[in-house]
Amino acid sequence: GVIIDDQPLLADPIVRYIGDCIGIVVAETEYSAYNLSKQVRITYSEQTPYLSIDDSKTARENFIHESNIACSHQVLKGNIEQGFQSASTIVEAEFTTPFQEHYYLEPQGCIAIPGNGEITIYGSLQCPYYIQKAISRMLGLPYNKVRVIQTPTGGAFGGKEDIPSEVCARAALAASKLNIPIKTVYQRVDDIVVTSKRHPFKMKYKVGVNSSRKLCAAEILLEENAGAYATLSSVVSYRSAMQAMGPYITPNIKVKSNSYYTNLPPTGAFRGFGSPQATFGHERMMDIVAEKIGMDPVEFRLRNILKPGFETQTGHLLEQSVGAEKTVTQAAAAAGWNDTRRKQKLDDRYLKGIGIAACHYGNCLGAAGWHMDGSGALVQIQRDGNINVSYGLVDMGQGAITVITQMTAEALGIHPDRITVLPTDSSKVPDSGPSVASRNVIMTGNAIRDAVKKLIPDLKSAAADLLGCDQKNIEFVNDKATNKESGDSVPFTQLAEYLYAHKSKTESSGWWHVPSLDYDPEMGLGEAYFTYSYGTQVAAVSVDTLTGIVKVEHVWAAHDVGRAINPAGIEGQIEGGVVQGAGWALSENFILKAAEIKTTNLSTYLLPTTVDSPDIHTIIIEEPEKEGPWGAKGVGEPSIIPTAAAVVNAVCDAVGHQFTSIPLVPEHVLDVIDERKTREQ
Amino acid sequence: GVIIDDQPLLADPIVRYIGDCIGIVVAETEYSAYNLSKQVRITYSEQTPYLSIDDSKTARENFIHESNIACSHQVLKGNIEQGFQSASTIVEAEFTTPFQEHYYLEPQGCIAIPGNGEITIYGSLQCPYYIQKAISRMLGLPYNKVRVIQTPTGGAFGGKEDIPSEVCARAALAASKLNIPIKTVYQRVDDIVVTSKRHPFKMKYKVGVNSSRKLCAAEILLEENAGAYATLSSVVSYRSAMQAMGPYITPNIKVKSNSYYTNLPPTGAFRGFGSPQATFGHERMMDIVAEKIGMDPVEFRLRNILKPGFETQTGHLLEQSVGAEKTVTQAAAAAGWNDTRRKQKLDDRYLKGIGIAACHYGNCLGAAGWHMDGSGALVQIQRDGNINVSYGLVDMGQGAITVITQMTAEALGIHPDRITVLPTDSSKVPDSGPSVASRNVIMTGNAIRDAVKKLIPDLKSAAADLLGCDQKNIEFVNDKATNKESGDSVPFTQLAEYLYAHKSKTESSGWWHVPSLDYDPEMGLGEAYFTYSYGTQVAAVSVDTLTGIVKVEHVWAAHDVGRAINPAGIEGQIEGGVVQGAGWALSENFILKAAEIKTTNLSTYLLPTTVDSPDIHTIIIEEPEKEGPWGAKGVGEPSIIPTAAAVVNAVCDAVGHQFTSIPLVPEHVLDVIDERKTREQ
Repeated sequence: GVIIDDQPLLADPIVRYIGDCIGIVVAETEYSAYNLSKQVRITYSEQTPYLSIDDSKTARENFIHESNIACSHQVLKGNIEQGFQSASTIVEAEFTTPFQEHYYLEPQGCIAIPGNGEITIYGSLQCPYYIQKAISRMLGLPYNKVRVIQTPTGGAFGGKEDIPSEVCARAALAASKLNIPIKTVYQRVDDIVVTSKRHPFKMKYKVGVNSSRKLCAAEILLEENAGAYATLSSVVSYRSAMQAMGPYITPNIKVKSNSYYTNLPPTGAFRGFGSPQATFGHERMMDIVAEKIGMDPVEFRLRNILKPGFETQTGHLLEQSVGAEKTVTQAAAAAGWNDTRRKQKLDDRYLKGIGIAACHYGNCLGAAGWHMDGSGALVQIQRDGNINVSYGLVDMGQGAITVITQMTAEALGIHPDRITVLPTDSSKVPDSGPSVASRNVIMTGNAIRDAVKKLIPDLKSAAADLLGCDQKNIEFVNDKATNKESGDSVPFTQLAEYLYAHKSKTESSGWWHVPSLDYDPEMGLGEAYFTYSYGTQVAAVSVDTLTGIVKVEHVWAAHDVGRAINPAGIEGQIEGGVVQGAGWALSENFILKAAEIKTTNLSTYLLPTTVDSPDIHTIIIEEPEKEGPWGAKGVGEPSIIPTAAAVVNAVCDAVGHQFTSIPLVPEHVLDVIDERKTREQ
Repeated sequence: GVIIDDQPLLADPIVRYIGDCIGIVVAETEYSAYNLSKQVRITYSEQTPYLSIDDSKTARENFIHESNIACSHQVLKGNIEQGFQSASTIVEAEFTTPFQEHYYLEPQGCIAIPGNGEITIYGSLQCPYYIQKAISRMLGLPYNKVRVIQTPTGGAFGGKEDIPSEVCARAALAASKLNIPIKTVYQRVDDIVVTSKRHPFKMKYKVGVNSSRKLCAAEILLEENAGAYATLSSVVSYRSAMQAMGPYITPNIKVKSNSYYTNLPPTGAFRGFGSPQATFGHERMMDIVAEKIGMDPVEFRLRNILKPGFETQTGHLLEQSVGAEKTVTQAAAAAGWNDTRRKQKLDDRYLKGIGIAACHYGNCLGAAGWHMDGSGALVQIQRDGNINVSYGLVDMGQGAITVITQMTAEALGIHPDRITVLPTDSSKVPDSGPSVASRNVIMTGNAIRDAVKKLIPDLKSAAADLLGCDQKNIEFVNDKATNKESGDSVPFTQLAEYLYAHKSKTESSGWWHVPSLDYDPEMGLGEAYFTYSYGTQVAAVSVDTLTGIVKVEHVWAAHDVGRAINPAGIEGQIEGGVVQGAGWALSENFILKAAEIKTTNLSTYLLPTTVDSPDIHTIIIEEPEKEGPWGAKGVGEPSIIPTAAAVVNAVCDAVGHQFTSIPLVPEHVLDVIDERKTREQ
C-alpha cells in the first residue's frame, strides 16, 4: 500500500478480491509459466463478500481490513446551519458514477535484474521512486541498491502510479531469490482483472442559494468505493472533498468524503483523482439549481464563480492566476451558448442539447502530499553545445519530453533541437515524487530553471571573455550570447567549447519544491493546494430517440493553463481528456457480476474511438501563476474533469430529464425517452 | 585517431599493419560471422614495409602517413654546452626496450544499441567520453545522442583507452546501419594482433657529472616506435621527454623525443606512458655513471635527488609534496642496502644482485592535456541516508570504486557501507577526461568534495534544527551530526529523513579541474604537470648461471602517494605494478616475424604468474599534496615505472655486466655469463 499499509505483496491468508496475487510462478517461457500456474490448486474458505458501498458501510463485523472505512476527509467552513437559513431555495440531489478502466496502451510489465546485491528495474511506469521504496522495503535493501529506470511508456492515466510497485516488487523478489533476470508482462485480461480502477462515487448534494442567486450553503456527502485495498483512495478522498463544490464562492460548506473497502477490484489513481466524480456532482447540481431558480446555467455559474480576492471552498484566499470566469465566458461564447441553446424537440428523431460544466483543479500534491512535492532535474552541456536533461518525473505519453525540451531551450536561450531528454532513472535525480497531479511541467520546469541558473554564471563569464564585455550586458537568446550594448554575439556552440577548453563546470543539478502550505487538516481549511487550474467545457450532443445513442458533436474546452508552454501539446491533452471523459460518461460500461469483472476486453468494454470523438475546440487561457515556470500550470487532468458533466448536462438539456447517473448507455437514455413519450401521449 | 587524425575506421585504400580493419561482417551468430569473414577475398598490392625505427626515420619517400614522424617533443633547459664543459666525467650509453602486450583480463568488446536516433554503448572500456566523441563524429550525431556506459572491467592498463573507440564505433556503425543491437567481442588472438602495445624505445643518454658528483648536464634522445598509427604516441613522447632524466636536479638538459611510424602494430597508452622506458634509461644511466665515478648508486642518487626548493628538469620549481628522497632512503634501508650489497660470485650456481631505481611521475594529464583535465561526480543522498555516487572516470580493476566509496564517506562523515558507486555513464557526469595518468583519485576525489561541499549547508541546517543549536557548532563524524559544544548528536539517517521531509536538495553535481599550468611547449619548460608522485624500488635477484633464468626474489617498493586513502589498495597497485614491470624486464618477449606477431597467446607470450612474483615489501610515504583530496596523489602507474630498471640494475650487479636492453630472457643472460666465463678462463 503506497499510503495505507493494507496490501500484502502476496495475499495470505486472506484473498480480498478476484485478482489478488497469491503466488508467483517463474519459468523460462511464458507458455510453461502459464501451464505451471494452472497446476496450482488452492482451497478457499469462502466468506460473504461486500459488493457495494452500502454493503460495506453497514457492516458491524467481519471487516475487510481493520474497519471497512479506508479513509475520510472533511471540509467545515462557515456556519452551515446559518447558511441554509439564509437560503431562498434549497435543492437536494443524489448522483452516482461508475468504475472506469485506464486501458493504457501497454499492459503492466517490467524486467528485474539482480546483481552485486543490487536490483535494477526497467518498466512501464509512472513513479520510479515508489517502486524503489517498495522493493527496498520488501528485500530489506538500502535505497541506493535499488535502481528504477523507466522504459518508454505510451499510457498510464494513474494506472501506473502504484500498481507497478507490486508488479516490479514481485519480479524483484523472484530475481533476488533466483539470482536471474526476471521479465513479467501482463496479458490484457489479467491486467484488467488485477489492477486498480477509477473509484465509483455515491454523492449527496444539498445546496442553498439566496435571493441574489448566490450560493449560500452546500452540504455534500461523497462516498467512494475503494475496492479491496486503499491504494490511492486517500488522495482521491482528499481531492474530491477539497473540490466538492467546484470553482464557486461558497461561504458555508460542509463536505464529508468517505472511502469504503469492498471485495471488488481496488480503486485508486485515475486522471483527476476524484475530481471528475465530484465535478459530475457539483456541475449536475448547478444545472439542477439553475433550472429550479429559472436562471440560465451560464449566468448562474458566472454569478458565483471564483475570482481573485475571493476564497475557495476551503478558505484559500486567491490573489492571482484565477482564470475561472474567463473559461466560462469564453467557452460559452465560442459555443454560441445564447444562440445555440434551444429546447429539445421530441418530434424529430434527433434531439439536440447543449451543456456546460466548469471545474478547478489544485495543482500538484497539495497539503496532504506536501512532503513528496519536490522534484529534480540534471542538466548537462555537451562539448558541442548540445544538452542532456534528466528529470525525476516521467513521460507516459503526455508529451513531457517535448515540454521539457522547450523549457530547457528557453532557459538557456537555445534551439530545442539541441536538447535530448533522457529516460527517467532513479539514480540520476533524487526522489522527485510521483508523476501525477498534473505536476510535471511545474515541478520539472522549475527544477530545470534552478539547474540552469547555476550554469549561467560560467556561461556569462565565457561570453564576456569571448565578447570582451561586461557580464551584465550578456543575454542568451536565439542560440547565442549577445552583448546587449554592442549587439555583438557568439554562438552557444562556441560557449560550450569555451567551457570545455577552460574546464568549467558543465553540469548542474536543479531542485524545486512547492511553497509551504497553510492548511488545517482537522477542519479541511486553508491552502489545500498552492494554485489551481480552471477549465470549462461546453458540450453539444444529439440524442437518437430511436436507439438512445448519444453522439457528442462538439466540445468547446476553455482551460486556464497559466502559460501555454506548448499549445499543440495542450490541445492534445485536452482532446485526449475530452474523449476519455466522454467515454466514461457514455460508453464505458464497466460490468461486474458479483465480484467478477465481465468487461475484460475491448469487445465488451467500449472505449470511444475516433468515430466517437466530437469536434473539439480548444481555447487556451493564460492567467500566469507566479510560482509556475514562465507562469505555467498543469492541464493533464483538468482536461478530463468537466467533460462527463458537460456531456450529461447537454443530454439533460436535449431530453429534458435530470440524469443523475452515468454511463448514459443507450438503453438507459431510451428508457427515459420512452417513459416520457408514454407520459406525454 | 584520438589525438592525431591519422587512423580511418576502416582501412581503405591503404592497409598499414596486419590487424588493420578493412570491413565489418555482421551475422546472427559468432560462427556464421566467422565463416562469412573467411569468404572475403582481398587483393593487396604490396609495398616494402617499415619494420623498425631506423627503417622509418631514414625513409625519404613512401611515408606511412604524411611523414614517418608521428610526433616529437623536446626540453631545452640551461646551457647544454656549458653544462658538459663543467663536467668532470661524461658518460654515454644507449638502451632499448621492447613492445609489451597489455593482456588485460577481458578482450575488447561492447554492445551497441540504436534507437530513436541515438546510440547507447555498453562495453569494457577506460574512456567513455572518447567513445562518445568518436561515434558522434563517425555518425554525425550530436554528443547528446551518444551515451556510453561502462560494464565491469577487470583490466585495461591503457589498452582500453582509445582502442574501444574503434571497437565501439564499428559496432555503432553496424547498429546504426542495420538498426539492430550489435555485440562484438574479440577473441584473444585477434585482440593481440589488432590492438595497441607499449612503445618500443631506443634511447641515447649522454650525462655529465661534476667533481662534486652532481649532475651538470644531460643530453637525451628518445626514439619511439609508434607502429602504424599514432594513437597515444604524443602523450608517450611528451611524458617521456618531460621525465627523461628522472627525479634528479639537472641544471642543463636537452631532451629530444621522436615517435616514428612503422608498419607494425600501433603502440599507444600503456601504464606509465613512456615513463617505464625513460626510467629504464635514466636509472640504468645512473648506475653506469655511479660505477664510472666509483660511487654507491644510492649515495649518487641521494646527492642529486629532487627536493622542495629545487627545479625539475623542465624548470618547475617544487615547493611541497616532494617525497623523492624519502623513497630512496626508505627503500634502501628496508632492503638493507648497505649490508646486502655485495659482489656477485661466479663460483656459485646462483649469482645474487641488488639494484635500485627511482622515478617521478607527473600526475594527471599535464600541460599538453590540460584542456581535458577536469572531472565530475554526482552525489545523491537517498531517503534512508544511503548514498549513490556517479563519476566520470572508471574502475578498471584498480579499485577506484573502493576509494571513491571511502572518499565520499569521509567527505560526509558517514560509514562507507552507506555508499554505492554506480557504473560510469556518460549521461550522468560531463566529460571528465580519460581514466589514465593515475588521475582518478585526485580528480574524482576533488569532484566529490566539491559536490559534498554544496550539500553541507542543507545538512548543517537540518542538524542545527534537529539539535536546536547554531549551524557553526555542527560537525559530521561517525555517521552523525554532532553539536561540538554540547556533544548532542543526531544520526545521519535522521538528517536524510529531515531533508526529504522538508523537500531540501539531496543531490549535488561536483567538478574539479587541475590548476592552470605555466608551461612553454616550444622549449618544454615550466610546469609540465601540477604535481608529481615519487617512487623508488630496490630489487634483489638471483641469476641461475646454468640456465640464465633470473628470479626476482624481493622488491622493496617505497612510493610517495601524498596521502594513502586506501593503504591496502595501494599495496595491491604496487604489487601489480611490480609484477607487470618484472614481466616486461624478464619474460614478456614479444616476437614479431617481419610484421607478424608470433606471440599471440599465453603459451608464447610469457606473463609472470604467482610463482614468478617476488616478495614485495611496500613502503607507503605520505608527503601531502595541497591540491590532492586529503593530500592524495596517484600511484597506479608509478608502481610499475621503476621496476624493470631496478630488476635489471640488480641483474647487472649480480652478473657484473651493464645490460642495456630488455627483456633479459635466459638465453640473453646466459650468453653474457658464458662470454664472461670464457673470458675469465
